[in-house]
Amino acid sequence: MPERIYNFSPGPATLPLEVLHQAAKDIVNYHDKGIGLIEMSHRSKDFMAVIEEAENLIRDLLHIPQNYKVLFLQGGASTQFAMVPMNLLGPGKKGSYLNTGVWAKKAIKEANIVASAHVAYSSEGSKYDHVPVDGDYSVDPEAEYLYFVSNNTIYGTQFPVMPKSEKMLVCDMSSDIMSRPFDITPFGLVFAGAQKNIGPAGATLVIIREDLLDRVPETVPTMLRYITHAEKGSMFNTPPCFAIYTIGLVCGWLKKIGGIEAIEKINREKAAILYDAIDSSDFYRGHARKDSRSLMNVTFNLPTPELEGRFVQEGAKRGLDGLKGHRSIGGIRASIYNAFPKQGVIELVEFMREFEKNA
Amino acid sequence: MPERIYNFSPGPATLPLEVLHQAAKDIVNYHDKGIGLIEMSHRSKDFMAVIEEAENLIRDLLHIPQNYKVLFLQGGASTQFAMVPMNLLGPGKKGSYLNTGVWAKKAIKEANIVASAHVAYSSEGSKYDHVPVDGDYSVDPEAEYLYFVSNNTIYGTQFPVMPKSEKMLVCDMSSDIMSRPFDITPFGLVFAGAQKNIGPAGATLVIIREDLLDRVPETVPTMLRYITHAEKGSMFNTPPCFAIYTIGLVCGWLKKIGGIEAIEKINREKAAILYDAIDSSDFYRGHARKDSRSLMNVTFNLPTPELEGRFVQEGAKRGLDGLKGHRSIGGIRASIYNAFPKQGVIELVEFMREFEKNA
Repeated sequence: MPERIYNFSPGPATLPLEVLHQAAKDIVNYHDKGIGLIEMSHRSKDFMAVIEEAENLIRDLLHIPQNYKVLFLQGGASTQFAMVPMNLLGPGKKGSYLNTGVWAKKAIKEANIVASAHVAYSSEGSKYDHVPVDGDYSVDPEAEYLYFVSNNTIYGTQFPVMPKSEKMLVCDMSSDIMSRPFDITPFGLVFAGAQKNIGPAGATLVIIREDLLDRVPETVPTMLRYITHAEKGSMFNTPPCFAIYTIGLVCGWLKKIGGIEAIEKINREKAAILYDAIDSSDFYRGHARKDSRSLMNVTFNLPTPELEGRFVQEGAKRGLDGLKGHRSIGGIRASIYNAFPKQGVIELVEFMREFEKNA
Repeated sequence: MPERIYNFSPGPATLPLEVLHQAAKDIVNYHDKGIGLIEMSHRSKDFMAVIEEAENLIRDLLHIPQNYKVLFLQGGASTQFAMVPMNLLGPGKKGSYLNTGVWAKKAIKEANIVASAHVAYSSEGSKYDHVPVDGDYSVDPEAEYLYFVSNNTIYGTQFPVMPKSEKMLVCDMSSDIMSRPFDITPFGLVFAGAQKNIGPAGATLVIIREDLLDRVPETVPTMLRYITHAEKGSMFNTPPCFAIYTIGLVCGWLKKIGGIEAIEKINREKAAILYDAIDSSDFYRGHARKDSRSLMNVTFNLPTPELEGRFVQEGAKRGLDGLKGHRSIGGIRASIYNAFPKQGVIELVEFMREFEKNA
């Protein structure tokens, strides 16, 4: 096995090696203070500086204005599926949802438990192989927001541009946040589990417009209210310190290499190399419709499931790991988030050519 | 500053140094597989082994029978304050609570949001300086459970023995789990934030009797239902991988040094050294009543707040860090959880004697 494999896992996913080395050092002895990072009180000056730095980097990279709060929560995107309607809707109120995959569908289910979801569009009938464009659906006039998932990890689809709507947007950006620039101002709320593009599992980034914090009904428990965390700088209770620290390191790395504009260019290059290889062969067939292709998760099939199984196994032997597609659609999935190196994509394409020749 | 300070922080708290060294290694290259621990898919064989090992060690150390589920959740004990009544009570039902500190009081508040709390006892009037004994209170005959906090971090009090009740017990053991043996069978549910005795911040251990899983009303969102996590081995969604991994390491360390019976002996020794120093001086006054003293958090006062401030500062200069008491009662708090070394307690007592002499 090489010293470092190429890790195509959909999440938790590959992180910059320099981030891992820094974390390894700080875990034992943070800044040579004789105490490990994960042993420090969250109320200590040192940890307060860590969380501030992480927030500042996020604001800087994503150009978040002051009327938005940046929160570090726990429970993953799955907890947000419920927190969003609990805080922004409440009983009797409604949100419009674009059902472009399993994660959108799960969010719809939770919205219907605590409030009401109007499904404005669904691509479920075509195995979620695409996302809609603006004219394809109508948002409920009574809806408080339009909810969508910007990148659908399982199917390898992504909104090439953000939807436009008179309603405020709410977005699950778990699998493509910080991979390309976007304008936050049409959004009421954006959330993202950290474990794909910005850090390890264990923290969920939430960016919420300040004026929405008061909407929450009194019946919502304290920890499930955004306002609880917003008023205390994500320190109402002990936050997931290590995950927040690592998010800060990843954002620092991203800033150093040129920020989101620079990484978008690299992401487009990496994806182009892979999609070109798929399109120039009859052996490999892309799952996602070309107009909806993801820059983060590239999904494709081989002629038979047997060949796909062999492809995954032989890839792993060469240090190309985690290529197995999600069980719901099978096939191959190459997840190539921000920190995934271009060289790994080049080596995957070489392997694809060899494999096709020998098949 | 010495190579490693004595960290008296109440949480996140000191961890075994060998655990930190192992984590540092695995974060960069897990078992020499060419991939870092925090980059591994939670569905990978390697991570599945990590979470299984952590659960098995917990079951082994705490003697948890098979009719209890062991879960790793997120959101801290504060989220459990709501999840417990959401799952075990529901609207119109009632739990009895012992109000022995801020954390108990917060749990009572959440219970009253989603169901109803009967306060069977309160020591708030005496600055929470003690916990009750069995005869001191009556549990509501209609209550589903008796809820208590086994160790009250802020005040330095602890139940010397667990309460007895005809009702099932529910306990917040955040600050003394695995510090002494206990019999799980009278308990319906036990929970503990990891960041004091068993790991870093970011995971909450929940041990729940299996037959209680079905009680949850249909109106509770998916992620807030214990049954969701119990049915999927804490892998319904991406779990807090690093925190779970570290819990496994800490439990492995604890098992190696002799398990909970062995650590209890050490904990009693450490606490005795410190309480003896307090009791043998008129300069230092313990906050907790002697019959309620905690083995985990030792709280005391000096003659004046000014002296207390100097004590904290001078201690920190000698590598005795994190001694400042909680703002709600002031004074000094020395948190000496499982991983806190006896030598640190000895050095604190030496410092106390010197400080008194020079004051």
